[in-house]
Order: sequence, then structure tokens, then C-alpha cells
Amino acid sequence: MPVLEFWYEFASTYSYPAAMRVEKVAGAKGVAVRWRPFLLGPIFAAQGWNDSPFNLYPAKGKNMWRDLERICADLDIPLRQPPFRFPQKGLKAARIALALEREGFPVAEFSRRVYLANFAQQKDISDEDRVLGSILSDLQIRVDLAVAVANGPENKQRLKNQTNEAIARGIYGAPSFTVGEELFW
Amino acid sequence: MPVLEFWYEFASTYSYPAAMRVEKVAGAKGVAVRWRPFLLGPIFAAQGWNDSPFNLYPAKGKNMWRDLERICADLDIPLRQPPFRFPQKGLKAARIALALEREGFPVAEFSRRVYLANFAQQKDISDEDRVLGSILSDLQIRVDLAVAVANGPENKQRLKNQTNEAIARGIYGAPSFTVGEELFW
Repeated sequence: MPVLEFWYEFASTYSYPAAMRVEKVAGAKGVAVRWRPFLLGPIFAAQGWNDSPFNLYPAKGKNMWRDLERICADLDIPLRQPPFRFPQKGLKAARIALALEREGFPVAEFSRRVYLANFAQQKDISDEDRVLGSILSDLQIRVDLAVAVANGPENKQRLKNQTNEAIARGIYGAPSFTVGEELFW
Repeated sequence: MPVLEFWYEFASTYSYPAAMRVEKVAGAKGVAVRWRPFLLGPIFAAQGWNDSPFNLYPAKGKNMWRDLERICADLDIPLRQPPFRFPQKGLKAARIALALEREGFPVAEFSRRVYLANFAQQKDISDEDRVLGSILSDLQIRVDLAVAVANGPENKQRLKNQTNEAIARGIYGAPSFTVGEELFW
């Protein structure tokens, strides 16, 4: 089965509709999806940006939200802007997702629920105790263990490595998709 | 007949495949196209960029060229990178296109030929005498008159106004499409 690698960042707006449908679209073509969470922050910082380009360039940000409204309406998925902060801080969710993926837990479903928390339910996805913990519980995953593994030094380093691999593959935004050496943004 | 406004910049890579197919795609849906050349330079400068973002951010530029190869191959249109300078200087071609559009001359065909000169034939599209003049001649348009009108103070101001209108409509890149108040990038 050919494999599509799906590179995503939990703070990223366009990653949300992509995450919601990537497995369905890929599955219909007989393609497996590998979920690869990474961090955009270090990539943006290396380009001299200390914030999302959607905040740094307001015209771009304004159109992105309108465009995202249209995309989500077409896909029939809910959209409500994060009320307290954009972009949200995706670090903790990314660490958990990476730990789940490595250990064979349902990273896809966890990731979709984090995106819904961020872009539909107006929840703080950096809140490990209530928001992320609650998602893990609902998936029958032991919260204390998952959080401990996610925040362990080995997993922290793995997320750094994953982000460095993204950079090495030429990734500069999210979502990105790779198939072998080919990059699609 | 509903009207799609097509905002384009002759230096812009993704404007090339868009220009080559916009009338065919719109026509199939019973939509008319209004060709609206404008300049990205002043918009980029206002964002603090003194060059194309594809040059300022090399990873983005590298993927753009690969992505454009795939798009052009799908559409069966030729692609060869401008050998001497990217982006090329589109100012003179934009002035001529605007003058043609206002006077009812074939701006669509002129524009497509300028894009082919830029992205397929490796010609210098700032060369008014040979490159742009030759395209005008081939379209049975009097070169001396077209160039004189294009470079007259009224037409120069109109191109500035057109670029300011693009900014006022929230445009920040090319190609962009507007239908009434809706913007699509």
C-alpha cells in the first residue's frame, strides 16, 4: 500500500480541514496515511517571523479566515475562530500525538479531536489537564501514562527531530504532504 | 452573464497557468472574465519585502518551481524558467495590457503571449521594442500607438489606481480572483 505522509501542526488553520478528511480521501485511493505532527514555530522563527504570517500580514489573514469558512462549509465541518488566541500553542498536543503514533495508539482520531477543540469548540489546546486529558480519556487512553511519555526527554527530542526532518525535506508550512521525495504544500 | 475579475501580474509564476486557462474554465460555466493587470511590487514593498517571497524564502521557492512543473504538465503547457532573472519586470507589459483592455483590444491573447514569453520562451518581457512589440505586431496592433498610450501619464496613473484598487479589495498576491466582494487567492 503506498503511503502518504501528512505533516501537520495543531495551530495551523488549513491543517484542520486536511486532518478531517485526509484518511477518507487517501483511503478511497488505496493509500495509507502516516500522521506526522511537527512544529511550525521553529521554522517560522528561522525565517524571521515571530508570529503566524496570518497575523503578520493582515490582508492574508483576513482572506484565510474567509477562505477557511468556504472550505469548511463545503466539507460540512464546523468552524469557530479560537476566541482567546491565534495561533494556539500546539506543542503539548504535538508531543502527545507523536507519542501515540509511535506506540500504535489512535493518533488520527486524537488529532481530529484536537483540531475540533481548536477550531470548532473554542477550547484551549494547550490545557493538558482538561482539554487534552479529556480527549485521551474519551479514547480510552490512560492520561497519566500518555502525558508522562509525551513529556519525557526522549519524546521531546523526537519531536525536535521530526521538525528537523520536515525542514530537511523542504517543508515550510502546514499542512504539507510527502510521497517519497515529492512534497505537496 | 456573471463576471469573474482576474487579477494578475506578469512576473507571477502561478498567474501563468491561471492566465492560460481562465477563459476556458470560466466560459464552460457561462462566466465572463475581466482581465485586471496590476503590480505586486508595491504590495510586497508595503510588507517589507524587496524581492519575491520565492527568493526571500528559498524552501518556498524550490517547492513552487516543482509544483509549477506538475501543474503545467497536467495542463499540457510548456514551462522553462526565466534564465536571466526571476522575477522578471512586468511593468511595461502591465501598462500595455491595461491600455489594451480599456480600448477593447485583445488583452487576453496579449497577456497569454506575454506569459508564454516569460515562462516558456525565456524572453525578456521588459523588452518593449523586440518582445512586447513583436507580440503586438502579431496581433495586428499598431506598436507605436499602443506603446505611446501605454506609457502616457494617464495610463501610468490608471495602473497605479488599479494596483491601489487591488490593495483596497484585500489582494496580496497573484493570481487573485474577485466576484463582487468575494476574494479568491
